[in-house]
Amino acid sequence: MLSPIRLALALRPPASAARPIVADKPAPSEATATARWLAAQNTWGVLSTISSDLNGAPFGNVVSYSDGVPGQGHGIPYFYLTTLDPTARDALKDERTSFTLSEFPLGTCGKIDPENPTCAKLTLTGKLKLVDLQSSETDLAKSALFTKHPEMKDWPKNHHFRIFKLQIENIFLIDWFGGPKPISPSQYLEFGR
Amino acid sequence: MLSPIRLALALRPPASAARPIVADKPAPSEATATARWLAAQNTWGVLSTISSDLNGAPFGNVVSYSDGVPGQGHGIPYFYLTTLDPTARDALKDERTSFTLSEFPLGTCGKIDPENPTCAKLTLTGKLKLVDLQSSETDLAKSALFTKHPEMKDWPKNHHFRIFKLQIENIFLIDWFGGPKPISPSQYLEFGR
Repeated sequence: MLSPIRLALALRPPASAARPIVADKPAPSEATATARWLAAQNTWGVLSTISSDLNGAPFGNVVSYSDGVPGQGHGIPYFYLTTLDPTARDALKDERTSFTLSEFPLGTCGKIDPENPTCAKLTLTGKLKLVDLQSSETDLAKSALFTKHPEMKDWPKNHHFRIFKLQIENIFLIDWFGGPKPISPSQYLEFGR
Repeated sequence: MLSPIRLALALRPPASAARPIVADKPAPSEATATARWLAAQNTWGVLSTISSDLNGAPFGNVVSYSDGVPGQGHGIPYFYLTTLDPTARDALKDERTSFTLSEFPLGTCGKIDPENPTCAKLTLTGKLKLVDLQSSETDLAKSALFTKHPEMKDWPKNHHFRIFKLQIENIFLIDWFGGPKPISPSQYLEFGR
């Protein structure tokens, strides 16, 4: 994935103002740590499905998520979705889904443009799965979601919100010049264990 | 698109704390104005394509955009993309694309959760088109992009950034209880003219 142009660019400093040093954020060379940091710090992102309403077009929807209680992220994003919205309906017909996060709303990109490669971007692609209500994972996911999104537990019962998770198959991270960083799902999921 | 449950919910106030009154933001009843406001206020979003690298899975990518110079948005999002990134490559093979914006990063949702329907979400679905370099639209788009994203004009020439635009075919806006608001592309594009 690293083109010669991107490799060359990796060796030169950013053209714009230097990005602020954020104590929390891993160094750009720490790709897996950066991906997990983005997943743990954010609270919302865009979940993209294959739209059944729109003849198979990609459809991105703004959703909240959590990968664990604060300070104890596991990297797997959990969602609380209702089939009143197209995203959950789409996923139940075609599981292929991507979930996209930006560093920009965290406020740590400073004056750098949101599209600048030093402002990190993470796309997790895989299958959106309904979590079995009877599984112990449901308790873990509810705790992860409701601590970061307290109002969820009061959302209307008759909307039948259910917990979904992304089974990650591909990871696309850009956090510096030089193109996307190769991270395997197992590297990502096992990080920090 | 309005289910009976959602219509009923439209009549009741939000369950959580009232959202802050933002002078700028149109009233929830003004759906078209709200969609155009979101497109004009934001500077970045998630562009989702059909991934050629990932066997047709949806692939969302963080991108910057502009719908016009500040204060003069026209509603059409313009992008500055390079085929070194998968999004532009995907769109050149399959134009079907959606572009997703959230009100949350604007700071106007207050303590409301990003997934709460009163924190507005906009998904524009259509075709991602390369803008002809010789057209007058290129000048308009460059001016729109470079005023909101000044560093773009200094991005590496050898990355061959090109201007793309979304030809909008479907609009999905949620800005209140009651499900997505029906807005046609012509209503959206002609708003304020």
